[in-house]
Amino acid sequence: MASTINKTAHSFDKSRLDALLNRRFFYAPAFEIYGGVAGLYDYGPPGSSLQANIIAEWRKHFIIEEHMLELDTTIMTPAPVFETSGHVARFADWMVKDTKTGDVLRADHLVKNVLEARLAGHNEARGLAAAPPAEDKKKKKKAAKTAAVILPDEVVAEYESILAQLDNYSGADIGELCRKHKLRNPDTDNEVGEPQLFNLMFASSIGPTGQHPGFLRPETAQGHFLNFSRLLEFNNGRIPFASAQIGRSFRNEISPRAGLLRVREFTMAEIEHYVDPEDKKHERFDEVRNVKLVLLDRHVQEAGKNTTVEITVGEAVDKGIIANETLGYFVARIYLFLVKIGINPERLRFRQHMANEMAHYATDCWDAEIHNSTGWTECVGCADRAAYDLSVHSKKTGHPLVVRQALKEPIVTEKEVPEWSKKALGKTYKQDAAVIQNTVEEMDQEQLTTLKWQLAQGKAVIKSSDGKEFELTPEVLTIEHKTIKQSIREYTPNVIEPSFGLGRILYTLLEHSFWGREQDVERGVLSLPPVVAPTKVLIVPLSAREEFDPLVKEVYSKLRKAGVFSRVDDSNTSIGKRYARNDELGTPFGVTLDFASVQNRTMTIRERDTMDQRIGPIDEVIAVVTELVFGNITWDEACQRLPVYDGVQAVET
Amino acid sequence: MASTINKTAHSFDKSRLDALLNRRFFYAPAFEIYGGVAGLYDYGPPGSSLQANIIAEWRKHFIIEEHMLELDTTIMTPAPVFETSGHVARFADWMVKDTKTGDVLRADHLVKNVLEARLAGHNEARGLAAAPPAEDKKKKKKAAKTAAVILPDEVVAEYESILAQLDNYSGADIGELCRKHKLRNPDTDNEVGEPQLFNLMFASSIGPTGQHPGFLRPETAQGHFLNFSRLLEFNNGRIPFASAQIGRSFRNEISPRAGLLRVREFTMAEIEHYVDPEDKKHERFDEVRNVKLVLLDRHVQEAGKNTTVEITVGEAVDKGIIANETLGYFVARIYLFLVKIGINPERLRFRQHMANEMAHYATDCWDAEIHNSTGWTECVGCADRAAYDLSVHSKKTGHPLVVRQALKEPIVTEKEVPEWSKKALGKTYKQDAAVIQNTVEEMDQEQLTTLKWQLAQGKAVIKSSDGKEFELTPEVLTIEHKTIKQSIREYTPNVIEPSFGLGRILYTLLEHSFWGREQDVERGVLSLPPVVAPTKVLIVPLSAREEFDPLVKEVYSKLRKAGVFSRVDDSNTSIGKRYARNDELGTPFGVTLDFASVQNRTMTIRERDTMDQRIGPIDEVIAVVTELVFGNITWDEACQRLPVYDGVQAVET
Repeated sequence: MASTINKTAHSFDKSRLDALLNRRFFYAPAFEIYGGVAGLYDYGPPGSSLQANIIAEWRKHFIIEEHMLELDTTIMTPAPVFETSGHVARFADWMVKDTKTGDVLRADHLVKNVLEARLAGHNEARGLAAAPPAEDKKKKKKAAKTAAVILPDEVVAEYESILAQLDNYSGADIGELCRKHKLRNPDTDNEVGEPQLFNLMFASSIGPTGQHPGFLRPETAQGHFLNFSRLLEFNNGRIPFASAQIGRSFRNEISPRAGLLRVREFTMAEIEHYVDPEDKKHERFDEVRNVKLVLLDRHVQEAGKNTTVEITVGEAVDKGIIANETLGYFVARIYLFLVKIGINPERLRFRQHMANEMAHYATDCWDAEIHNSTGWTECVGCADRAAYDLSVHSKKTGHPLVVRQALKEPIVTEKEVPEWSKKALGKTYKQDAAVIQNTVEEMDQEQLTTLKWQLAQGKAVIKSSDGKEFELTPEVLTIEHKTIKQSIREYTPNVIEPSFGLGRILYTLLEHSFWGREQDVERGVLSLPPVVAPTKVLIVPLSAREEFDPLVKEVYSKLRKAGVFSRVDDSNTSIGKRYARNDELGTPFGVTLDFASVQNRTMTIRERDTMDQRIGPIDEVIAVVTELVFGNITWDEACQRLPVYDGVQAVET
Repeated sequence: MASTINKTAHSFDKSRLDALLNRRFFYAPAFEIYGGVAGLYDYGPPGSSLQANIIAEWRKHFIIEEHMLELDTTIMTPAPVFETSGHVARFADWMVKDTKTGDVLRADHLVKNVLEARLAGHNEARGLAAAPPAEDKKKKKKAAKTAAVILPDEVVAEYESILAQLDNYSGADIGELCRKHKLRNPDTDNEVGEPQLFNLMFASSIGPTGQHPGFLRPETAQGHFLNFSRLLEFNNGRIPFASAQIGRSFRNEISPRAGLLRVREFTMAEIEHYVDPEDKKHERFDEVRNVKLVLLDRHVQEAGKNTTVEITVGEAVDKGIIANETLGYFVARIYLFLVKIGINPERLRFRQHMANEMAHYATDCWDAEIHNSTGWTECVGCADRAAYDLSVHSKKTGHPLVVRQALKEPIVTEKEVPEWSKKALGKTYKQDAAVIQNTVEEMDQEQLTTLKWQLAQGKAVIKSSDGKEFELTPEVLTIEHKTIKQSIREYTPNVIEPSFGLGRILYTLLEHSFWGREQDVERGVLSLPPVVAPTKVLIVPLSAREEFDPLVKEVYSKLRKAGVFSRVDDSNTSIGKRYARNDELGTPFGVTLDFASVQNRTMTIRERDTMDQRIGPIDEVIAVVTELVFGNITWDEACQRLPVYDGVQAVET
């Protein structure tokens, strides 16, 4: 039997985790030897592997499993695309300037930091547990600056209400809050100016003449939308279907300070699922109907609360909490994916966006939020973008981004239709002809009926959108009653968009996986599931002596053939130290080759979390560890097949 | 036996290939509905898959096979990094402006296009086969503009010599060539101005204040170098080792017109292999010693020729044609990789850079050039960057990027060493103290010996680098003779860099794979090897009838379990049309499910290139196709196991 372990013997210590991630080069500040740049990070070998494994699992879970169409589109984007999509006007955050130093702060972060510090001071003064939610030193320092003062009950209630709906405020609202509550730059205690919008896109210029402004994409989505017609054709004109893309995006964050949780360059995985707006059912919804989710809906938040409910996705859709089956299907699939790669389901919730918070293109949005040492963090967004993007690009470019569907039975309608005498129109109205035509073409049936009656009287007066009046006669225009038979239905599909921030997922996964050995907190362990662990099996020869070489090569190549990625550690330190290093790297299994291996062809296997060691013939151990890595058996089942190892060679020292 | 096929019955037709790639959405101009942007492309589903498969094979062939350390570093780079690396000053191309229209052209491309057109005209006039080397229409049009004039022999020889060493010219040289040979903009026939340098990096600005200029990286290499210390530590301080990275890079090309062969945004795969400058042997060199390569060395080119030699890599290194074993090892490994993914080895050569052509950081460089319809194209560079990058970054930042190696026997040296009286130094010279100290510390042994003698006389005068003179006395400085025992050797490693342009490889692979059926040139085929083909197996049910569903699902899930990626095509067209579509997509095998499958559990399999069809029990066909996909057996061997199918259902119509 496996030994019992206690992963929560020590409370979570972010500084220990950060030290581990830095020491083992999971990731590090980019350009560190040049002093670094806030919000830019490089992934080292274990971080790159972890990210690659998360991506591989994502590709299986979504692209392969659901037959999505993969894309790889361009990052550098000409300005007109983001002018049309609305990003040039609206993809911005509110910033405030310190009135004396000129330092720039993100306005909503300022409100959050100051009010949270005041509430912490209040609790401290009242003698309540005053530990700030985050453990990092900067926050502690800031909190320490705020005097421990007891606040009146109504002030506490007001602060809590502000924090609950922080994402809902406009720039003017935040300016007002700063004045009313005397919110100052916590680093300098200076006042701050009026909030101003700062566009988060990085700008550049394409080509040698400097005449073609461009932006680095802040999301991969537009690359999907612009290719919609080609994708639809590739899918033989059928709908629903989804496109998927994994790639880099860029956001010029105002003052990023939260490690991988807020960065200026990041890898995203985005799905754009195209549906008939009149039928948002999903054919595989029944497969996820019973998945239980923790939800925080917009009404609760708008009331200044944060009470969650646990509910099946089926019930949530039935009750209208989640708007439709397709949105619900993806919310559930996101949940299943996150739990599969090792996110703790008890620290995962779905929060609905409030009305003012929603991105300019979305009609409904649920964020998968994962709890970590800084609080709840949005890691996946799942938005219903409706027909917004396809419509605006289509309108701007004149290229139809629509689905044309043959109707089983043609739809027959009767309606009033304007019939022009083009010649008379041009001759009579010259350059005004187009305006006149547009004005009439945009009229609804009721207006046309009125116009028809007026024309029947001999003349009619119409008013263009800019207020000009024109007199029309039956020589130029008549309105005819027609029967129209429509055999093709043409519509702009709606888009459901699950959008994953892979760096945020990777970081919260590391937090959820990290613990210290009960007997010694300094011995950190990352309990990453085999599916995402950078290395699955560590091969540890007792020493770097040549006699072990053939066995090391044999085990390595047999594991490789079985599809298991292993690494050899023949460095010149004790086996215990080599295992400890690999506990920090999250390597789930280790196999040791010693003199007994050479003589008897046996090998020991060690499980990372329990440190249990088992022994068996080399090929049997390879077979067992392969099944463990692929998740076909548990460690307890492995223990049924391999006896306990009680030798001395591989004892950890 | 497999039927014989003739893949070269029709000559290569680039316009047919382009039409196929566009129709099947391998890739398309990015932002096409906005009119497109030169040099930017989006990959559709088959292009994305092909690229992903090439990357997966690259990762196996290099990273896994050679235990490289993978990285994922940042694209957006602060300006000081590229100032130090030399890219701000020197990563540029020469451009010329049309003196009337202001159109911008790349200067060397102008020379090449005009001289090649004149030579084509000359050949035409002499009645030689005048087909221009490239088949695309633009070139034909340009060539047609150039009158068919017979040129004197010495002019022909001069043009050919210029073309052979085109990459060797400076901007002034090209300006001179334009004047001497009256080279004009071929689009307008206007003169062009003096060549000017244009930096190819995209510029941007990091953060909200606009005070931090940045560039998008033009290569991934700097991200490796800046992390060298961390990588070395991760590798337990041992050398040689390599880091590897696959990622996006950007170059603001002057006027890109060559499809995927010259783009402004591209995916690279780069290896930086760190070696001891005193030992560039490679421990696995013997494994590649006998690989035969076609080489074009720099001496041949500098003599205005392009004669290649075929030679083993072992011989090339022995003869000093390739500078060292490590460079030779990677050249051979690049060759093996390219051939494995389907590049025609007869259209692959390695060309050495000429002295002036070399990038500013390289000491030797060999390009893998792949022949295609536009000529020979550089697809992989393999450069010896020596210690250039690590040295400049180390010098700029003060952060040592070195290897420290314990010496088996310490090196004992005797030398003169300055000994300061720091107190007297500060007191006497105040703010000049640092300058004085630096000036002396930078002296060599000979200078120190002179200084020692002068000081022994009572005083010495030294001159700082900016020309100031200082008088020194023995109270401030003495020079001591010391015996120094060095037990650590510290050195800056050299870097061998194989650098792959994946888009160019992908495009040339598509050219090498494309042909038309002998009986009907319209029926295009892409003979992609299974290892990179977007889809390995197409599952074709006779019709979309429900009775086939369970079998389709069974075959799909059994193939998936065997690790074979298949797609189902149940669209409403004939089986022949479905196969024809998948010939264009490069799908190597198809299996057909019909009524016989339902009754007898048999299935037919079709091979793409021969169109041979075989039949067998479903599970046997799955086993055979799996072995085919993994390259364990050939189609001829498969034919031994499965009888010919002579039924009627799956006949191609």
